[in-house]
Amino acid sequence: MKLATVDDGTPDGALAVISADGSRYLATNVPTLQAAIEGWHKAEPTLTGLAARLDAGEGESTHSLVFAAPLPRAWQWLDGSAYRSHGALMETLFGTEPPPPGRPLMYQGLSHQFLSATSDVPLPREEDGIDFEGEFGIITDFVPMGVTPEQALGHIKLLVQINDWSLRALAPVEMKTGFGWIHAKPACSLAPFAVTPDELGDAWRDGRVHLPLTVDWNGVRFGNAEGGPMEFGFHELVAHAASTRSLCAGTIIGSGTVSNSNFREIGSACIAERRGIEMLDEGKARTGFMRFGDRVRMECRLRDGRVLFGAIDQKVVKA
Amino acid sequence: MKLATVDDGTPDGALAVISADGSRYLATNVPTLQAAIEGWHKAEPTLTGLAARLDAGEGESTHSLVFAAPLPRAWQWLDGSAYRSHGALMETLFGTEPPPPGRPLMYQGLSHQFLSATSDVPLPREEDGIDFEGEFGIITDFVPMGVTPEQALGHIKLLVQINDWSLRALAPVEMKTGFGWIHAKPACSLAPFAVTPDELGDAWRDGRVHLPLTVDWNGVRFGNAEGGPMEFGFHELVAHAASTRSLCAGTIIGSGTVSNSNFREIGSACIAERRGIEMLDEGKARTGFMRFGDRVRMECRLRDGRVLFGAIDQKVVKA
Repeated sequence: MKLATVDDGTPDGALAVISADGSRYLATNVPTLQAAIEGWHKAEPTLTGLAARLDAGEGESTHSLVFAAPLPRAWQWLDGSAYRSHGALMETLFGTEPPPPGRPLMYQGLSHQFLSATSDVPLPREEDGIDFEGEFGIITDFVPMGVTPEQALGHIKLLVQINDWSLRALAPVEMKTGFGWIHAKPACSLAPFAVTPDELGDAWRDGRVHLPLTVDWNGVRFGNAEGGPMEFGFHELVAHAASTRSLCAGTIIGSGTVSNSNFREIGSACIAERRGIEMLDEGKARTGFMRFGDRVRMECRLRDGRVLFGAIDQKVVKA
Repeated sequence: MKLATVDDGTPDGALAVISADGSRYLATNVPTLQAAIEGWHKAEPTLTGLAARLDAGEGESTHSLVFAAPLPRAWQWLDGSAYRSHGALMETLFGTEPPPPGRPLMYQGLSHQFLSATSDVPLPREEDGIDFEGEFGIITDFVPMGVTPEQALGHIKLLVQINDWSLRALAPVEMKTGFGWIHAKPACSLAPFAVTPDELGDAWRDGRVHLPLTVDWNGVRFGNAEGGPMEFGFHELVAHAASTRSLCAGTIIGSGTVSNSNFREIGSACIAERRGIEMLDEGKARTGFMRFGDRVRMECRLRDGRVLFGAIDQKVVKA
C-alpha cells in the first residue's frame, strides 16, 4: 500500500491512498497520515480496502494533485548513520572516533518541517557547504520504552525515502561541542509516497531496504548504492532510539546516507562522501558542494522497474 | 497573563487562562496553547480579555483541575547552555572544549512529550545517573530564518520553567560521537503555567529572567541561583536557532541549567554541577545521582513572593 499527503493548504495536508504505479488515488476519511499512524490498527483496514479498489482500476488521476511530504511535520525525527562505509569515511574527514562496536550513531533532527519532493530548498549561503544525503527511512506507531529489536520490527509501519540536507561547513564546529547539530541540519525532504513494507516483497528483509537509491546531480548520475548493507537494521535503530524514551506514533527514523563499500564503482548518495574518497585517493577534495540553482534527483525502483516512493527532484535556492 | 493546559485526556489538552495568583481560571474558545501561539495576534486579545476578568475576581477554582504541561508535546524543543559558570564546570567534567567565543551551545531535544509538573518520571535504570536540570525557557511564534537578536525579542511570546531530565552516565559516549544526545536526554518536564513576559515586570529585561530558581531535592534546599547571568539572552538563542531554519510557532527554547559563578554559596540547579564543584574542591565527586523514589521540586517566585510558573514537584520511578 502506498500513501501520500495532498497539499490542501493545511499544515498536515490530506491523506490519500495511491495506486501501485502512482497514477491514481482515492481519498479517505482518515484525515491525515499522522492520524492514520496514531490509530493504525483502526485505519489500516480502511486504507487497505481503498488500495484494493485502486488495484481493481478505480480512482482518479494523480496528475492534478500537489503532494506535500507524507508527514509535512512530525513530532520526532531521528537520523541514524547505519552504513559503516559512509561512517568510516566521515570519521576520516572530520577526525572523529568511530562509535563503540555494536552501537548505532543517531541524532535528533529538526522535525517541524519536511519539504515536499518538488519544492525549492531555501538556504542562506552557498559557502555553508550545501550537500544532499540520500536515505531510506521508516515511520513507527507508538513504541514503548525498552523495546527489543525483534519487537521493534512490528512497530515499523511505513517506509519512506529522504533527502537529509546538510550544511557541511557548519558541521565540524557543532560536532566538536558534543551537543550535535543545529545550524548544519536544516529541514529534510521526503519523497511523495510512504509505503507499507509488503510493497517491497522480499526486498524488505532483516529490517533493511534491499533496493538501490539512484542519485542524479544536475542530471548526471552521482550514485546508485544499494540500501541493504546497513550495519544495523531499522528494527535495531528503533530499539536504540527507544532505550530511555517511548517513541510517539509518527516517529521517523532515517538510515543515514546510503553507502556501499564499493563506492568507487557505484558512487555516493552525498557529496561529502565523494570528497572523502577524493581525499583518500588524491590527497584533496576536488568536487565542490552545491550552488544555488543546482538540482538533485533521488529515486528508488523495484527490481521490475516500478518507482517505489516517487522521485525527490529539487532545486536549491537562496533563502 | 498566565496560561495553562488542562489535562482533558486529549494529546494537547485544553487551554485555560489562570489568575495571577494561580487560584482561579477561565476556559477559552481558543482550543489549545499550540493553536494560540500559531495565531497569536488573533488569540492574544481574547486571552487578555479573560485575564482582565480574572483580575476583576471572576473565574472558578483551579483546585479541581489537573494540569498537563503547557505544551504536552511541541514541534520543536531546543535547549541552550547559556550560563558560562555551568558550561565551564561541565567542560572540566567531560573534558570537552569550550565553544568558540560569541557562540551559544544548543542541542535539538525530544519534543514529542513534555511531562506535567506533578507526574511521576519513569526512567529505566538508577545507574544511568539520573539528574535534574532546572531551567527557564521561552516559547516563540513563527520565526523566519535569519532573524536578528533584536527582531527575535518580539517573537518571544511566553516564558516557561523547565526540568530538563538528564542521564549523566549515558552522556559522554554520545557527546564523543559528535551526534549529540539520544539516550542521555529523555522527556523534559514543564511547570504548569506559561506566562507572558509582562507578568515579570522589570524582572524580564535583556531577554533574561532576573529571578531566582529554587531547587529542593527530597525536601532539602539544593540551589537558589539567579536566572539573570546568562551569557546569551533568549533573543540571542532564538537568533542562533534560526540561522539556517525558520522556527515553527510553538518552538520552546531553554536556557540550560541555571547557574551563577558563586555556586559555592547559592548552590546548583543540577547534581552534575555540584559533583563538578566537589571534583574541583575535593578531588572527587561525593554526591550521588537520584534514586528511584527521590523527589525534586523547582519553583520561581516574583520579588513579592508570588509563585510565577507554579512548582515542578516530581518523583522518579522505575519505568
